[in-house]
Amino acid sequence: MRVVGIRRPGAAGVEVAALSDDGATVTVLAPLEEFWADAATHLGRPADGDPVPVGDVELVPPVLPGARVVCIGLNYLRHVAEGSFAGEGVPPYPTLFARWTQSLTVDGAEIPVPADEDGLDWEGEVVAYVGSPLVDATPDEALTAVVGYSTFNDVTSRRAQKLTSQWILGKNGDRSGPLGPLVPAGEVGDLRDGLRVRTRVNGETVQDGRTDEMVYPVGETLSLISRTFTLRPGDLLATGTPSGVGYARTPPWLLQPGDVVEVEVERLGVLRNTVVGNEARRGR
Amino acid sequence: MRVVGIRRPGAAGVEVAALSDDGATVTVLAPLEEFWADAATHLGRPADGDPVPVGDVELVPPVLPGARVVCIGLNYLRHVAEGSFAGEGVPPYPTLFARWTQSLTVDGAEIPVPADEDGLDWEGEVVAYVGSPLVDATPDEALTAVVGYSTFNDVTSRRAQKLTSQWILGKNGDRSGPLGPLVPAGEVGDLRDGLRVRTRVNGETVQDGRTDEMVYPVGETLSLISRTFTLRPGDLLATGTPSGVGYARTPPWLLQPGDVVEVEVERLGVLRNTVVGNEARRGR
Repeated sequence: MRVVGIRRPGAAGVEVAALSDDGATVTVLAPLEEFWADAATHLGRPADGDPVPVGDVELVPPVLPGARVVCIGLNYLRHVAEGSFAGEGVPPYPTLFARWTQSLTVDGAEIPVPADEDGLDWEGEVVAYVGSPLVDATPDEALTAVVGYSTFNDVTSRRAQKLTSQWILGKNGDRSGPLGPLVPAGEVGDLRDGLRVRTRVNGETVQDGRTDEMVYPVGETLSLISRTFTLRPGDLLATGTPSGVGYARTPPWLLQPGDVVEVEVERLGVLRNTVVGNEARRGR
Repeated sequence: MRVVGIRRPGAAGVEVAALSDDGATVTVLAPLEEFWADAATHLGRPADGDPVPVGDVELVPPVLPGARVVCIGLNYLRHVAEGSFAGEGVPPYPTLFARWTQSLTVDGAEIPVPADEDGLDWEGEVVAYVGSPLVDATPDEALTAVVGYSTFNDVTSRRAQKLTSQWILGKNGDRSGPLGPLVPAGEVGDLRDGLRVRTRVNGETVQDGRTDEMVYPVGETLSLISRTFTLRPGDLLATGTPSGVGYARTPPWLLQPGDVVEVEVERLGVLRNTVVGNEARRGR
């Protein structure tokens, strides 16, 4: 099953729906809040409503507005080694930074380059969805609470990210966080088994890693987080990117308006977005 | 006017309301989404509904779940000098970190100390509310868009904050961000004129600063942010804390269960919270 968020004309708010295998229709599973109140149950039964043509709905992330998007930086050894933190070695704990849900978008969305940036950087990765509350959870409890995964591109405004010690400005650009459909955890298995993660720019492969390279697995990271704040159903964990990002190259390579960036994750599918100029920010 | 969020039995969601001068009643201004769709207008007209006793409602932050809480670290010179970044001097741009709205709470709430912390640290400050969209705004445009301010306590889990280079884990503890009522910008004036900000622990003054000590004013900071991402009505900017935090003292002084922490800001009022043990996290 591939699960998406939709807005229908006349519906009160976002609904969660199953996308058909051919991507032509969606079948509503539940309103957004109701879905996250019991995601495991909604994901475990077949969608039995009437199919709606995809062209009649707007696709949006199946994400609660108040969800937290916790992101791991520096989680693949070769990515640590290529970047500006290389001299410090592997951090002793997962380096966690924040996205707000307002930065999220979907497959096909156009991503603007902010005015002060020389371009945008790609970071292909996998995001996990928390399905039940976690307080002081063990790694096993935390992993069991994960109800699904998506392909994710943690598109980054490097200049803004590196203005100061803290990264979040450059990690929350408008429409900078495209997210593929949610695939139920039972169909994905364990990321430690190694799903291939590839990023392509205009068809050229720029990242090619496997999720078994991660230093900090999903269960351990969610467990650590839950010892400071309570994770809630609908919260997300972006698990970090493999090596091959653009700013670390010689010369640096950043996405320009017109470029097409794709992230493909085994079992999770392909996410494809086009980069546009800053003027696109003014139209909304 | 002092503006709060409320939940009433039977109401569909959070509403925004004016608190009476004696704090005994609230008068509804608008449902939360409707309020933020035109906050300046709602704040500019008298609340004319029927007063409801405060005891009949639950007070909550008047904040959209999807709002961004952008926080400035290191914005008061003497606070920079007292902390672990002292050797690096004043940062060349405002150091921005993130809170999610799930960490926010209200006056009177009990704040738990997470299991792995030796206590919690206080950070009394002022938060500003954005009332209209800001894309590539000038500092003047950005300041004009601010519709109100509140007293804020950026209560911090220092151990979690300093596990890695990024601070956000320690800045998002459960109920760690109490927020006083919103006071309309017109009643507050300009923070550059210098509002006194004081923090007290069990009655003893531990911070005593003025908002004219800020390195990065509100308009300039919102302007900078708006060049990377579009600020939306309801987004918040926490403006940083003066010197006097607990971890920088010799010996360090952290809040323990039973302690009462108060932040008082001139024209914005007093915010008072009690610290409790980690077991309080399990009851919710």
